[in-house]
Amino acid sequence: YGLYGLLARGVTFAHLLYEEWANYGVMCKYQPVDLIRKYFGEQIGFYFAWLGVYTQLLIPPSVLGIFVFLYGIFTVDDNVPSQETCDNGLNITMCPLCDAVCDYWHLSSVCSQARASYLFDNGATVLFAIFMSLWAALFLEHWKRRQMYLKHSWDLTSMEDEEVFMMCIFVTFSAVFGVAVYRICMLSVWSMNPDPEAKASVRMTVTTTGIILNMLVVLVLEEVYGAIAVWLTEIELPKTTEEFEERLIFKSFFLKSMNAFAPLFYVAFFKGRFAGRPGDYVYIFGDYRMEECAPPGCLIELCIQLSMIMLGKQLIQNNVFEVLIPYVRRPIRNKRAAEDAENDGEEQRPRQQFDKDFTLEPYEGVSPEYMEMIIQYGFVTLFVASFPLAPAFALLNNVIEIRLDAAKFVTEVRRPDAVRCKDIGIWFNILCGISKFSVITNAFVISFTSEFVPRMMFKFMYSVNGTMSGYTQHSLSYFSVNNFPNGTAPSSSLSTGVTMCRYKDYRDPPWEKDAYTFSKEYWSILAAKLAFVIFFQNLAMFLSMLVAWMVPDVPRSLREQLKKENMMLMEFLVNHDEEVLSKARSPKQSMILCPPCTLKKCPHIVVYIWVFLT
Amino acid sequence: YGLYGLLARGVTFAHLLYEEWANYGVMCKYQPVDLIRKYFGEQIGFYFAWLGVYTQLLIPPSVLGIFVFLYGIFTVDDNVPSQETCDNGLNITMCPLCDAVCDYWHLSSVCSQARASYLFDNGATVLFAIFMSLWAALFLEHWKRRQMYLKHSWDLTSMEDEEVFMMCIFVTFSAVFGVAVYRICMLSVWSMNPDPEAKASVRMTVTTTGIILNMLVVLVLEEVYGAIAVWLTEIELPKTTEEFEERLIFKSFFLKSMNAFAPLFYVAFFKGRFAGRPGDYVYIFGDYRMEECAPPGCLIELCIQLSMIMLGKQLIQNNVFEVLIPYVRRPIRNKRAAEDAENDGEEQRPRQQFDKDFTLEPYEGVSPEYMEMIIQYGFVTLFVASFPLAPAFALLNNVIEIRLDAAKFVTEVRRPDAVRCKDIGIWFNILCGISKFSVITNAFVISFTSEFVPRMMFKFMYSVNGTMSGYTQHSLSYFSVNNFPNGTAPSSSLSTGVTMCRYKDYRDPPWEKDAYTFSKEYWSILAAKLAFVIFFQNLAMFLSMLVAWMVPDVPRSLREQLKKENMMLMEFLVNHDEEVLSKARSPKQSMILCPPCTLKKCPHIVVYIWVFLT
Repeated sequence: YGLYGLLARGVTFAHLLYEEWANYGVMCKYQPVDLIRKYFGEQIGFYFAWLGVYTQLLIPPSVLGIFVFLYGIFTVDDNVPSQETCDNGLNITMCPLCDAVCDYWHLSSVCSQARASYLFDNGATVLFAIFMSLWAALFLEHWKRRQMYLKHSWDLTSMEDEEVFMMCIFVTFSAVFGVAVYRICMLSVWSMNPDPEAKASVRMTVTTTGIILNMLVVLVLEEVYGAIAVWLTEIELPKTTEEFEERLIFKSFFLKSMNAFAPLFYVAFFKGRFAGRPGDYVYIFGDYRMEECAPPGCLIELCIQLSMIMLGKQLIQNNVFEVLIPYVRRPIRNKRAAEDAENDGEEQRPRQQFDKDFTLEPYEGVSPEYMEMIIQYGFVTLFVASFPLAPAFALLNNVIEIRLDAAKFVTEVRRPDAVRCKDIGIWFNILCGISKFSVITNAFVISFTSEFVPRMMFKFMYSVNGTMSGYTQHSLSYFSVNNFPNGTAPSSSLSTGVTMCRYKDYRDPPWEKDAYTFSKEYWSILAAKLAFVIFFQNLAMFLSMLVAWMVPDVPRSLREQLKKENMMLMEFLVNHDEEVLSKARSPKQSMILCPPCTLKKCPHIVVYIWVFLT
Repeated sequence: YGLYGLLARGVTFAHLLYEEWANYGVMCKYQPVDLIRKYFGEQIGFYFAWLGVYTQLLIPPSVLGIFVFLYGIFTVDDNVPSQETCDNGLNITMCPLCDAVCDYWHLSSVCSQARASYLFDNGATVLFAIFMSLWAALFLEHWKRRQMYLKHSWDLTSMEDEEVFMMCIFVTFSAVFGVAVYRICMLSVWSMNPDPEAKASVRMTVTTTGIILNMLVVLVLEEVYGAIAVWLTEIELPKTTEEFEERLIFKSFFLKSMNAFAPLFYVAFFKGRFAGRPGDYVYIFGDYRMEECAPPGCLIELCIQLSMIMLGKQLIQNNVFEVLIPYVRRPIRNKRAAEDAENDGEEQRPRQQFDKDFTLEPYEGVSPEYMEMIIQYGFVTLFVASFPLAPAFALLNNVIEIRLDAAKFVTEVRRPDAVRCKDIGIWFNILCGISKFSVITNAFVISFTSEFVPRMMFKFMYSVNGTMSGYTQHSLSYFSVNNFPNGTAPSSSLSTGVTMCRYKDYRDPPWEKDAYTFSKEYWSILAAKLAFVIFFQNLAMFLSMLVAWMVPDVPRSLREQLKKENMMLMEFLVNHDEEVLSKARSPKQSMILCPPCTLKKCPHIVVYIWVFLT
């Protein structure tokens, strides 16, 4: 970097880091990882190296995601199902969305939502989801190689593995899991239709407001869960700090991810699945009907929710928690420090750098930073099938996040004690877990949340001419208004002479023998959905395994370097013994022995031997 | 072992191995693995260590498999579906199994087959299949630990990893895959009903004969494929012997396993699936109807096929290829050697031990032994859901196999050159691959080959009183004899007045609107089957991951040992330098330096240093 030259000319290390790393001017440069490690130690060095690799690798999926989105925009006009939804001529009368208060409505009134839905729910999304599984595998492999390289160049190869914790975790696991289940249950109850009238009239606004409220709840609960995780870990009485750290990470990851992802899981897989059908809705606690998604499907809601949580979390967390609060706290702290100094009654000595540094925020470890990023990784991979723009959002955030974190470490907090570690530890396992889980969630999102499978089934099995025309009619079932139970039919209706209304489900029509039971189409489409899940999951898993197998863990150049160093060590040992002996025989002739490799690249053991022998 | 005492008393190494290892008398003892490694080198040492661990770990599944089988035997009389099949009173007339020649038949005539089928197709099998996935994960983990231990105690920790081969393999992969596909196709064509009359009358005998024939084909083709694999690898021009070996292993494994497993896959997943229905059978090449399984389902056929191939392969391979052929060849070889000696025209010197040894069979590497065992591992794991006795068969075989291989290595072949290697190499990857794949095959066998899911669906969805009674009627569809196409109805029938016959499928009856199309039950059961696959696969994968995560790769005692040794090395280096210097100063006072650990347990590096410094 030529940085050592600057250091020699009297620029302080911290200032150099600030210049070369912790400001937005160098946003497009690689981070000076070696310098970071020198100043902050291996742990923080690894964090930023990881963040760098992650951000860099986010570029291809961001670009591809934008293309997928653009593909949606350009083909939306050719999309038959949304055209049919918007077609006023079809004049489809839909059943009311709530009891008594709601009226019949026309399908064409949700035209814009159907078009918006198509942007994220088209064939390209499926390919993108498969691409993302591969990408996750590639990312993990790439990081492994990078980590191996750093381990070597930072001379950590001889560091010992610590034993992995194992036993007590299952005791508290149940507690954590209990909290998560409670959270999902509360969410379902909380989101049950409390005010049908208001909701029916301003559905979209209410949904969005609900999502924003929910997002705030997520942010507040995150802090609460952090405290719970600490408390649970303290109960376990782990023996060492490392053990404490690992257990805490594991638990808080579980709680926080449940917190962040529960609403998404609810919308993707539960909302509207158990709502029943017109004339036989499912009621909970007597009065409350189970909530349903807006008519164009749950995918668009999942999409909104995901973008809200991602954007909101990032904006609020970055700006409020990481910028605003420290900014507010700093003057208070400075003032208090000044008061303390006065109260001490000592002579007024000039304030040194270490006095100033002491007024900074204390360093709280690198775990919260990892946690934030890992949860973002979850958003990017777990539900990418519903929202191809997620990688682009994440990329945007991370480019800022790196410099923000850097500035925080350099200027806002006290310089942390350097912690030595040989890799990113348990975080890698968590990343692997998320990547594997994401294959399953994406398979289910495509099958059950999007309408990809029903459309394909219609096209290849039920369509008369092999096109999509008629899909909308096919996907709606008939309901005879005579079958409304007492008091649930619309009390005052603008539409007159309605005998049949339609609802989105595959059930037998009222004139068949088994009226309102699931139709043959329902079961065959369900089978197709499940078959797609199996196909997708196994294809993605196979491809990921192939990637992991084809990319060697140790880069070829490093492998050769290691071999060479081993040989040099042996040669050195052979030659050196002679030299020691000759040196001992003629003690006056003191010669300086050069080690066989430069200090920076030297394997640990050579340095040791060199030091002891000379 | 006290073996070194024997060695000291003049017993030869080979004789000792023969006494302590290569005979059936010591069958119940652990193998003297250290001794084997000393005499034959690491490669063969690892093979027998692995075989020992595998055999030992086969004991629990063998016992459990026998229990599952016994459970089947004891509950077969309470099993409603097989009772109903055997019930003459129901008087169910089944449709003929072939065109024109076959007659209608009564369901009760396949009573015994239905009862036999239940032995392997009951609820316990599902649990056993899940257990086996866990077992496979546990086995791999256990072997990793054992390998790590051996690596340490055999002083292989400092051995270099070789780079994994990668590039050319995809060129030939297509060739290998092509052969496999061709094999499956040939199998389908070959097994199409060539002689319907004979087959209908003596169905069971013909099936069994067919399977035995098939098994012989498998055995012969195995040798052919071995040659193909060598040829393909030679085309690739690998650079080193190790590379050649690895590539060859990979290809021959693919070809040989395809060969061994193709008939099983055919029976489990293809046979009878595309046979059509009465009145609309699927014909290939104009005349040939697709083959169907016997009426109680394909599972019993899979079961017979598996047991035949396993038993046959083991008996024939062990006895013919490994015992008989060498036994026949030996006198021929001896005679030729004697002739050669005479022809040489040298003086008749007395025959030394090395002369005798030279007449033995040449050593052909350890790969064929591994291959045999890995394919057995495939039989044990891939289709265990259909045949819980497979582990017991494998155990029985292996107990003999160990001693047979041992005798072969000690007495039948020339002593092999010791090959140093640090683990079992690519075989471990192949084992992992098989274990992962087995989860999928077992899920599909339970769902699609056994009748577990349809029975459960009947019990919980269609049964009027929650019991299984009525299942047989429910699982059979109606066919009106008027719908037989010309010339396919039975030409001369013993049964008179048949208007309806039954066949095993879920299709709408002739009197419904959509006669003979798949019924609602078909689709819902298909959906349930697919859902079961997803559930089973993810459950088994999750449990396996949990096992792999909970069992640390390095045993705790070994980890502590390694730490201690590292410390000792450091201490030794510190102290030793002083000693070298003092020794150099007073050369007369020659002292013998003892290494800080006994030679056997010493890490590589310490020995090196010790040798060079003293």
